[in-house]
Amino acid sequence: MAIARTQPDSPNTSDLASYCRRIAESARHASSQLLELSTAVKNAWLELSAERLKDSAQEILSCNARDLEQAPQYGLSDAAIDRLRLTPSRIDQICQTLRQVAGLPDPVGEIIGGSTRPNGLQIQKVRVPIGVLLFIYESRPNVTIDAAAIAIKSGNAILLRGGKEAFHSSRGLVELLRETGREVGLPEDAIQMVETLDREAVGLLLHMSDCIDLVIPRGGESLVRRVVAEAKMPVLKHYDGNCHVYIDSHADLNMAERIVINSKTQRMGVCNAAESLLVHADVASRLLPALGSALQQRGVELRGDAKSCELLPMAKPASDSDWGAEYLGPILSVRVVASLEEAIEHIQRYGSHHTDAIVTNDLANARRFAQRVDSAAVMINASTRFNDGGELGLGAEIGISTDKLHARGPCGLQELTTYKYIVTGDGHVRE
Amino acid sequence: MAIARTQPDSPNTSDLASYCRRIAESARHASSQLLELSTAVKNAWLELSAERLKDSAQEILSCNARDLEQAPQYGLSDAAIDRLRLTPSRIDQICQTLRQVAGLPDPVGEIIGGSTRPNGLQIQKVRVPIGVLLFIYESRPNVTIDAAAIAIKSGNAILLRGGKEAFHSSRGLVELLRETGREVGLPEDAIQMVETLDREAVGLLLHMSDCIDLVIPRGGESLVRRVVAEAKMPVLKHYDGNCHVYIDSHADLNMAERIVINSKTQRMGVCNAAESLLVHADVASRLLPALGSALQQRGVELRGDAKSCELLPMAKPASDSDWGAEYLGPILSVRVVASLEEAIEHIQRYGSHHTDAIVTNDLANARRFAQRVDSAAVMINASTRFNDGGELGLGAEIGISTDKLHARGPCGLQELTTYKYIVTGDGHVRE
Repeated sequence: MAIARTQPDSPNTSDLASYCRRIAESARHASSQLLELSTAVKNAWLELSAERLKDSAQEILSCNARDLEQAPQYGLSDAAIDRLRLTPSRIDQICQTLRQVAGLPDPVGEIIGGSTRPNGLQIQKVRVPIGVLLFIYESRPNVTIDAAAIAIKSGNAILLRGGKEAFHSSRGLVELLRETGREVGLPEDAIQMVETLDREAVGLLLHMSDCIDLVIPRGGESLVRRVVAEAKMPVLKHYDGNCHVYIDSHADLNMAERIVINSKTQRMGVCNAAESLLVHADVASRLLPALGSALQQRGVELRGDAKSCELLPMAKPASDSDWGAEYLGPILSVRVVASLEEAIEHIQRYGSHHTDAIVTNDLANARRFAQRVDSAAVMINASTRFNDGGELGLGAEIGISTDKLHARGPCGLQELTTYKYIVTGDGHVRE
Repeated sequence: MAIARTQPDSPNTSDLASYCRRIAESARHASSQLLELSTAVKNAWLELSAERLKDSAQEILSCNARDLEQAPQYGLSDAAIDRLRLTPSRIDQICQTLRQVAGLPDPVGEIIGGSTRPNGLQIQKVRVPIGVLLFIYESRPNVTIDAAAIAIKSGNAILLRGGKEAFHSSRGLVELLRETGREVGLPEDAIQMVETLDREAVGLLLHMSDCIDLVIPRGGESLVRRVVAEAKMPVLKHYDGNCHVYIDSHADLNMAERIVINSKTQRMGVCNAAESLLVHADVASRLLPALGSALQQRGVELRGDAKSCELLPMAKPASDSDWGAEYLGPILSVRVVASLEEAIEHIQRYGSHHTDAIVTNDLANARRFAQRVDSAAVMINASTRFNDGGELGLGAEIGISTDKLHARGPCGLQELTTYKYIVTGDGHVRE
């Protein structure tokens, strides 16, 4: 593996524009060639990359060491430095991801609908790649590999724009992926890294809707909002996850306690963690005191409405802004509701259409909740934490969409495809 | 049927903002109720509306007569006045559309994927309505009914913003649809007309992404571009259709002639009409002279490259802008290509990813063309004119998308839905 350049390029502005244009156009060209690439070649590339990465672990770790050296300059927190750090076992995990994606079914070419019309025309609706993806992400080096693997397996060319903190690690990984690509016959420039740290480059690329079909920003809300505001092409995006757990009057209260604790505390800083608890009035006095203590013991601050504060001596009063908040940390808002209907209305009003759970043994209530709550995932007697590509069986994901159009919830291989109609006749003309 | 008001409202600007807010919020509220509406009620509404429309034909014709009276004021062309005109037989056709949509399968609730995970969690991916649609269209009154029928059958609330020319006809039709809705139990305000002609109203609605999930503009390119520029929510849009017919070296030349003539001349002003003909050099001299004459007889002007001009004495030389043009009229650009590859490259460079056809008896060439040409519909030995919701078997369409994301090509009931995950466990928590 040859990793020649050692510092980020920093071209001047006119060079920058032509550089961005060049990589976008070569991605478009590669995407056209990718349309004919067989599953066998894609899988061979994934397998070879896993093997090569294992063999090149030392070189990648040296790249990573350079990023780690520079990390203090960037003012990274210890947690951020930990996310940035590669280790032999993390490299093993990345190799496993590559092999896992190789094992997933190829979405391209799947016939997802069709018919033979009365006039004999044969209609096929066939899954095809989207084209060119621009992926903008933050510092974890493994994301570079995840994104490239998912993009190529779904037949898309990808432009990778990672965070500056992981520049050398990402570049080492991308060089490796391009080298194995050349060996197995992947189109050149199917995978490209945006090799400048100039923020202007992102703005320029976001205007190239003739070459880039979809942007996927993965990072903080300000990054996502900037991309949405500037992009001239569709954005697959994720805003906030204000997730609810509703405990129905017909709930098993032990199960309710387990699910609330898991949804809130299994991992606090993630989008599918619970931020708000709704409890039916019939069970509030039996559930809340013990559950409140259990949450308090785990360091969770409770903010309740008047009724729940009566049952939770440790709770502070919630303000209206609490109902809409995504805390991403150890706070939970709590409200007692008079009915299933009130719970649904609360979720519709304050929720973010991400993940909402009901705990109940009443089938009609479960069905009603699932039908009325307009969220990407509705959980029945299960933790909100299960809204995740791996847990839902997608195999690998490039992000979670909070949009309703195109893709909703975790985005894996299928969500990076579109379709075309192939219509076959024998000289059919329209009368 | 009571049609009380006789003139468009024209509220002042602050009234306008609160009026727009009110209708958008009541549409959002109705869409939430629509989530629970049964197929039976939706179909009953479609059937009753067809029956009532038949019975109320005279009243609707009177509304239409008022629009026709005002048409000269609006400077409508004869063709536009003809599109605006309702007749008893056109009303019969509208009744048939309503019954046809009633007969289509309900897309809502379809389980489009899922699995039981190793831990026993059951995952269902279920088709659900998008929510609230804003439909902006021009003057044909039948479109009012088509759009409302498709929206409601797919479980969506709809805001209808038609052209001023058809104001009275559309209002009469919407009043009828709302009245039958009340009778069968459709949520109030599932169907609403934007009852002001103030253009400002559209701008206000396009900012209400909290209430409106999707905008569908149907009309000229300037309308679509305005909507795309202003909308804060996704837009299902249609730009241009620069459709190609490629005649391969292995084509049946009689079939080729029929398909070119049909693709170009069966209807000239539509997006799926052919605008460009590509002919393989091996068959150009046998095909072009007779085909050129046949097209000339039908009033089609030919604009060719140097080689085709040699074979087509009536042709003018094409300029580079001809290759990218959507004429929507009696002009066809013609180019002789040396290979299938050159044809594909030409289409990739100049086409609009709408509809492109190959005429060939060579299966490998047909497959290659279908795979490489990145268009919403690829036709093999069939006229480009078949890219149409009805012809492809969608049953009814609200428009054709030239985007790749969410929906591509004709948009019928399925394309007005999204999905959610419903995940059922028995107390599952994540480890």
